[in-house]
Amino acid sequence: MATAGKVIKCKAAVAWEAGKPLSIEEVEVAPPQAMEVRVKILYTALCHTDVYFWEAKGQTPVFPRILGHEAGGIVESVGEGVTELAPGDHVLPLFTGECKECDHCKSEESNMCDLLRINVDRGVMIGDGKSRFTIKGKPIFHFVGTSTFSEYTVIHVGCLAKINPEAPLDKVCILSCGFSTGFGATVNVAKPKKGQTVAIFGLGAVGLAAMEGARLSGASRIIGVDLNPAKFEQAKKFGCTDFVNPKDHSKPVHEVLIEMTNGGLDRAVECTGNINAMISCFECVHDGWGVAVLVGVPTKDDVFKTHPMNFLNEKTLKGTFFGNYKPRTDLPNVVELYMKKELELEKFITHTVPFSEINTAFDLMLKGESLRCVMRMDE
Amino acid sequence: MATAGKVIKCKAAVAWEAGKPLSIEEVEVAPPQAMEVRVKILYTALCHTDVYFWEAKGQTPVFPRILGHEAGGIVESVGEGVTELAPGDHVLPLFTGECKECDHCKSEESNMCDLLRINVDRGVMIGDGKSRFTIKGKPIFHFVGTSTFSEYTVIHVGCLAKINPEAPLDKVCILSCGFSTGFGATVNVAKPKKGQTVAIFGLGAVGLAAMEGARLSGASRIIGVDLNPAKFEQAKKFGCTDFVNPKDHSKPVHEVLIEMTNGGLDRAVECTGNINAMISCFECVHDGWGVAVLVGVPTKDDVFKTHPMNFLNEKTLKGTFFGNYKPRTDLPNVVELYMKKELELEKFITHTVPFSEINTAFDLMLKGESLRCVMRMDE
Repeated sequence: MATAGKVIKCKAAVAWEAGKPLSIEEVEVAPPQAMEVRVKILYTALCHTDVYFWEAKGQTPVFPRILGHEAGGIVESVGEGVTELAPGDHVLPLFTGECKECDHCKSEESNMCDLLRINVDRGVMIGDGKSRFTIKGKPIFHFVGTSTFSEYTVIHVGCLAKINPEAPLDKVCILSCGFSTGFGATVNVAKPKKGQTVAIFGLGAVGLAAMEGARLSGASRIIGVDLNPAKFEQAKKFGCTDFVNPKDHSKPVHEVLIEMTNGGLDRAVECTGNINAMISCFECVHDGWGVAVLVGVPTKDDVFKTHPMNFLNEKTLKGTFFGNYKPRTDLPNVVELYMKKELELEKFITHTVPFSEINTAFDLMLKGESLRCVMRMDE
Repeated sequence: MATAGKVIKCKAAVAWEAGKPLSIEEVEVAPPQAMEVRVKILYTALCHTDVYFWEAKGQTPVFPRILGHEAGGIVESVGEGVTELAPGDHVLPLFTGECKECDHCKSEESNMCDLLRINVDRGVMIGDGKSRFTIKGKPIFHFVGTSTFSEYTVIHVGCLAKINPEAPLDKVCILSCGFSTGFGATVNVAKPKKGQTVAIFGLGAVGLAAMEGARLSGASRIIGVDLNPAKFEQAKKFGCTDFVNPKDHSKPVHEVLIEMTNGGLDRAVECTGNINAMISCFECVHDGWGVAVLVGVPTKDDVFKTHPMNFLNEKTLKGTFFGNYKPRTDLPNVVELYMKKELELEKFITHTVPFSEINTAFDLMLKGESLRCVMRMDE
């Protein structure tokens, strides 16, 4: 392309400081260096993780920064050494990568790449420790290697999944993070069998994606657990058959769930990150075969406590990162599931706005009104 | 047989009170009632669990009682409704049964039968709540449904595995409990792949059986962890390549193990029941794919504590009961592994004594000198 090798000037939403509205700026995007790819973003969605690092409560503040990590785009140009992608390829950016060479990538069982595993504090490219974004020459930091709130962005080749060019990017863009995290937690880790019972703790986008996994696995009963009773109506579209609000009960919620299911759930998936929900998620599964899967991210001082006899009684406790998907290897196949109409992604996309209205997307999420708000970059 | 339907008088070792030497007595063994089987025991081994309930420190004391649960015998007669076994069949008594009809038995994933799961407090048959043993008409209590320290015993048909009649009962008798518990924990639950690293906490009979499972799975490195350095020499016969004594280190043993293995073990199996060892067993496994399996039985006040990020980092924590073997269904196949010379049971049988010297077997175990002491009932 005519732009290859040159700096591209384009629009990006810059977070100048914690919690302040983003501002659309003209940024300079440098050409991709060795093992990097410059991508034209067509659609990007907003995920809680963007909001979390924008609020920067408790984490290392890294500003000014271009956030964004759920997106779909087209390769504009590639840097030296990139052989797997070429201009024109359709790609999903990945907040956690896959180098295909480390012990984790070589293991069939892990997706936690040593080289490209998510790093929320790093605001620069790993190749040379520099940013590819500048405004009038002043560097702007990257976010989780993706920074998709920009018309163009530079991403390590190991953090891009090449997908079917026929897949509609305005839909499959949400597969980059939240959907795959929740869906994979159920289908890759909890693995309910047809006819089994499943509890989902937390009915946000990740929890509903986990629920979608339970529905597609043929679960006979799917119990949603959430503190907000308004979530039940929406959750029904995702297969929720029963709803439990812990606030409605004087006894611990796991006791309520065990009574409802004649001894416990076959599978349970925790998508809130609250430590008490994590403990309940494990306590509520059936002895002999129950599997609990933790997805929600805890705080650093949390302690998981339980009686060890729960394990001896053959309950299993697992956790997952990105739904155990190997990002580059597996995401193209998840896209194909959508193409075969097995996944109903439309249910998750409750709002769409022009990129210029990105702060509306933040408002909708903060008010809990949206599951996913997709932004159209060309508007 | 001529004895069918009649009371049999024979020798049994009776525990009259906690911690006092057993005494060989003439007992009357009633005929088997509905769904029961009377078995002539040929060989019985001593397991820690017998010693534990004989000492009765902390548990409900149930005396006078006939202990014993690792054994091999031959069916003498069967009660009403028993169709799966006939006089002359070779059997292994099982401290935990399999009714084949409850949810657990019907589940592919559980071996914790609702009806016949181990019950250490019950000293009578479940059919009529009575004992089949008497001495001069006074009832003597059963132990875990097996009571194999007797020339004849009565056992529920669901607590007997019918095995290959060519299998030498003086060897395969040890498959009834400890060996299968440890071996199954590795091969059925931890499931190390060829070339992986495995740590075994506790190098008693169960731990060494777990180690044997690691060796047969093709583990590249097997690290034994024990407070007694004398255990290392013996453990080498079971494939132990490295030995760690937590007492030799000022830092927590899981840190030592993580350093030794470049980030953590692929698999770890805990066979002591000590809560700190359980926690170390989980902490020492590798992120991304590590699996820790708890086998040792904790005390009732123990609390398992860990940071939940360990799960999010894709470490799995499981436990097992009887090595996840379905006792009646699977034990015959374990016997066949021995018949095919895949299992080396002889290494575990460090002593044999006549039944009349049963107190010697107790002494050897209490001194930590024996792994398994097999008693010959006909002497």
